[in-house]
Amino acid sequence: MDLQSFREKEIPSFEKEMLDYIGKDLTKKEQIHEAMSYSLAAGGKRIRPLLLLATIHSLGGNQKKGYAVSAALEFIHTYSLIHDDLPAMDDDDLRRGKPTNHIVYGEDIAILAGDALLTQAFEIIAASDAEPEKKVKLILALAKSAGPDGMILGQMADIQGEEKELSLEELQFIHKNKTGELLKFPIYAACVIAEALPEIEEQLMEYAEHLGLAYQIRDDILDVVGHVEELGKNTGMDEEHNKSTYPGLLTLEGAKAALNQELAAAKDKLKNVEQISKNSDKPVQINLLVEMIDLLVID
Amino acid sequence: MDLQSFREKEIPSFEKEMLDYIGKDLTKKEQIHEAMSYSLAAGGKRIRPLLLLATIHSLGGNQKKGYAVSAALEFIHTYSLIHDDLPAMDDDDLRRGKPTNHIVYGEDIAILAGDALLTQAFEIIAASDAEPEKKVKLILALAKSAGPDGMILGQMADIQGEEKELSLEELQFIHKNKTGELLKFPIYAACVIAEALPEIEEQLMEYAEHLGLAYQIRDDILDVVGHVEELGKNTGMDEEHNKSTYPGLLTLEGAKAALNQELAAAKDKLKNVEQISKNSDKPVQINLLVEMIDLLVID
Repeated sequence: MDLQSFREKEIPSFEKEMLDYIGKDLTKKEQIHEAMSYSLAAGGKRIRPLLLLATIHSLGGNQKKGYAVSAALEFIHTYSLIHDDLPAMDDDDLRRGKPTNHIVYGEDIAILAGDALLTQAFEIIAASDAEPEKKVKLILALAKSAGPDGMILGQMADIQGEEKELSLEELQFIHKNKTGELLKFPIYAACVIAEALPEIEEQLMEYAEHLGLAYQIRDDILDVVGHVEELGKNTGMDEEHNKSTYPGLLTLEGAKAALNQELAAAKDKLKNVEQISKNSDKPVQINLLVEMIDLLVID
Repeated sequence: MDLQSFREKEIPSFEKEMLDYIGKDLTKKEQIHEAMSYSLAAGGKRIRPLLLLATIHSLGGNQKKGYAVSAALEFIHTYSLIHDDLPAMDDDDLRRGKPTNHIVYGEDIAILAGDALLTQAFEIIAASDAEPEKKVKLILALAKSAGPDGMILGQMADIQGEEKELSLEELQFIHKNKTGELLKFPIYAACVIAEALPEIEEQLMEYAEHLGLAYQIRDDILDVVGHVEELGKNTGMDEEHNKSTYPGLLTLEGAKAALNQELAAAKDKLKNVEQISKNSDKPVQINLLVEMIDLLVID
């Protein structure tokens, strides 16, 4: 199966299950649930769930077993966007082509909706039907990835780096934490759920590292060359906020070269996975994960 | 042992362990950790940890086993205060006798510090050394109590009820969720950790329900009759915010009567616990829990 078919088959049924966590009976919903649903349903590329489900499938597991954790992950990703968009933070009024949460519901409810998504993420994993040992591993990893030594540390560094010229090293520190951690988590979670061999997990985590970096470089490039309609968010925001970016530090061509380098490194790790899996009794099909790399290529 | 000695023995050693979760080496701390520590260390009565530890001790368990969950609970309580105090929410500049988090660190960092405390709370439980089954139960219960069908639902109702005359029923709905859920959780957590008999747990949960209600009525009364120095926060804030309160709805005398009624009901539940425990091989010492009630009495 190719990634396109996999995505078309899995993502709509995953999305339905994800929104059901907020409450199946819409008439009984309180406004807090409405505000949570609004941002969750606002779309986005579901890149993290897709990565998680595709990795489980690649490892020979049943991707349905990844729905709950993917939902939790998307809850956390969505909360971080709602809080990031607040006037006291990035002050964005457009996200995924729609008015941001605080524009629709007000700042107070947007803060609470973010808090609620973050809190319920852990409830979803705890209430899922995996073995307790696996649930504890997943909760621990998700909290670390999203917490004050992961995503939030990156957000802090991002705030502190505004209006300041950053070195490439500082920029990478921000991205490694701010977006990289939550892009590595789906690969880790898939390895836990599908019980990957440790040596396969190791290669996949390195794949995830390169993919995460590539994702961020690409985001910076698109902020320069992309269009509002394509991205569903305002472009040129980095420059408006005087944020340091890869194109700013490396030139646009240099950023594209760095992107290609990360994508090539990610591909190498998958070749290692293929090699290791050939000599084991747990075959791994890497094609979906190769296609995840191709998704990030910019012509 | 009486509650005073228990508190003096346990709370300082608990507080040390709690602050250590943020990082033992202060020189390595980032500003996000500093902002988290600031509000965590700002004191407060540690009523929830005290309740949790005292209940474990009463059930014959080792209260040290409750430190991690108590820390998680205090992390969540503290995050909720930081976010509640934000300009977009209650806009308070004084908390526990000190400037609120956003006054010291700015709104953006205060939002992130709250998010970080909330996230790390689940990490602390997941990383603790209880059995995986117990950890999953505790995480599930904590997320439910603090989430969009618990504390956050109460905060929403509170926001929606501002500038509006509430009925006693509506006021109770707010408090049951906004503060009641996180006051019931420590009793539940203690029962899980110390493996209480189900019939004991049932009575203790009703005790917790009455205690939580009493706690809120008392808070409303103190807002009318208390002093800034005693409370460490501004008084008269409820009236300034036009919030409905028990004294407002029931008169001051009526609120005191309602408080006494809840305290008496809580005491009755402990008598039931004593009765049940006499006929079992797991003795329960109720004296610390009786003293928790006496703490809430207003002369």
